[in-house]
Amino acid sequence: MPLFRTQLAVDNKLASGFDPVTEADKGAETAIRAVIEAAFPDHAIIGEEWGTSGDSRFSWIIDPVDGTRAFISGAPVWGTLIGFAIDGVAVAGLMSQPFIGETFLAIPGRSTYRRGDAALHNRTSGATDLDKARVFTTTPRLFNTSELLFKWEAIEAATRLQRFGMDCYGYALLAAGQADLVIEPYLNTYDIAALVPIIREAGGAISCWDGSEPTGGGNVVAAATPELLAKALALVNAS
Amino acid sequence: MPLFRTQLAVDNKLASGFDPVTEADKGAETAIRAVIEAAFPDHAIIGEEWGTSGDSRFSWIIDPVDGTRAFISGAPVWGTLIGFAIDGVAVAGLMSQPFIGETFLAIPGRSTYRRGDAALHNRTSGATDLDKARVFTTTPRLFNTSELLFKWEAIEAATRLQRFGMDCYGYALLAAGQADLVIEPYLNTYDIAALVPIIREAGGAISCWDGSEPTGGGNVVAAATPELLAKALALVNAS
Repeated sequence: MPLFRTQLAVDNKLASGFDPVTEADKGAETAIRAVIEAAFPDHAIIGEEWGTSGDSRFSWIIDPVDGTRAFISGAPVWGTLIGFAIDGVAVAGLMSQPFIGETFLAIPGRSTYRRGDAALHNRTSGATDLDKARVFTTTPRLFNTSELLFKWEAIEAATRLQRFGMDCYGYALLAAGQADLVIEPYLNTYDIAALVPIIREAGGAISCWDGSEPTGGGNVVAAATPELLAKALALVNAS
Repeated sequence: MPLFRTQLAVDNKLASGFDPVTEADKGAETAIRAVIEAAFPDHAIIGEEWGTSGDSRFSWIIDPVDGTRAFISGAPVWGTLIGFAIDGVAVAGLMSQPFIGETFLAIPGRSTYRRGDAALHNRTSGATDLDKARVFTTTPRLFNTSELLFKWEAIEAATRLQRFGMDCYGYALLAAGQADLVIEPYLNTYDIAALVPIIREAGGAISCWDGSEPTGGGNVVAAATPELLAKALALVNAS
């Protein structure tokens, strides 16, 4: 957080293209790993910046700054993600947006929102119809083949409102009842694990496009209800 | 602000398509107009919701909620815009994001940022090169003809990083040095007038694609420097 909206040292993670990794990413993950390692030395840790350590049924899955491109362009829609999974299924998760001061936290049985003195239970909108749905994706450029783009365009045509640019913040807003559907391809486990319980414990549903468990990443759809998820999956798989 | 992230009565402004107008829009503009009318009864007022009143060299130009779609999907990247123009050129402007608690305010000679006790002068990044530029546009779907889309794709190919979904917030971040370029077609005067002095007084440059004054709206480019604006305009007009 101290580096947000300051001049950053931005490295290029990939030889080709632009994949910014900031000192903020690296420093935050180092700090988070140290806390987890001290408390649970036997657990596995999977982090975006520093890779996997340990081998256990219990794993902590970290994205220190999800939405790095938002971060380096000053947009407060990035978040720090920490998921906790047992046997590959996330059961607890945290999304923190420290500039705004919001946290979305799920443990079994509860998904909560906190900001300052405010504490709320997250509840999805309950939406079941595609034609009334508000849908988020980070950018349509994620759908980088014709096959993928047709799937996005089918969702776009079937829904009421589309918004881009949200990263993890879109999933958090879905849990809070402010969006109805999020669809993205090519997610890594650290992009999504923390968000899975935040959505499920708020009444939402989330899976890979083939219906499988999304904690490990892949092509993912999150929805306000199981009914809406089923409709979105049917459309994506027919397009 | 009291209606943000609550269940809203959303009307359809257009018979076809979906153009949400919330009670928040209408109520905020009514409140703002009342204050201006009481202080400056001879000035003109142009508002998104309630139209134009008065006829004067001096005009107040209001968008009560710029980014209504962000507003109704819970994303805190909308703003309340109030511009003040003399003879059709905006010379003072305010952008307020009340959920985060930020205001960007320009008067002649000064563009400032305030949040809580923090007060800063806005300064653009000073960027002069397209190939290092971070560029914002609300959605690529704004470029809704082949001719327009080619222009956006030329900008996309020439720049380092693109982000969608920002509405007025993108222009404010440009003034604050966090983005280098914003390009959008089809703006109304109330979408842009307040932002013109916020950008210019921070060292940035903004014009319509034909180089004309943007306070009245149209196809607009904003840039961190006059040099970068010139390069962006040359590319847009050649594509």
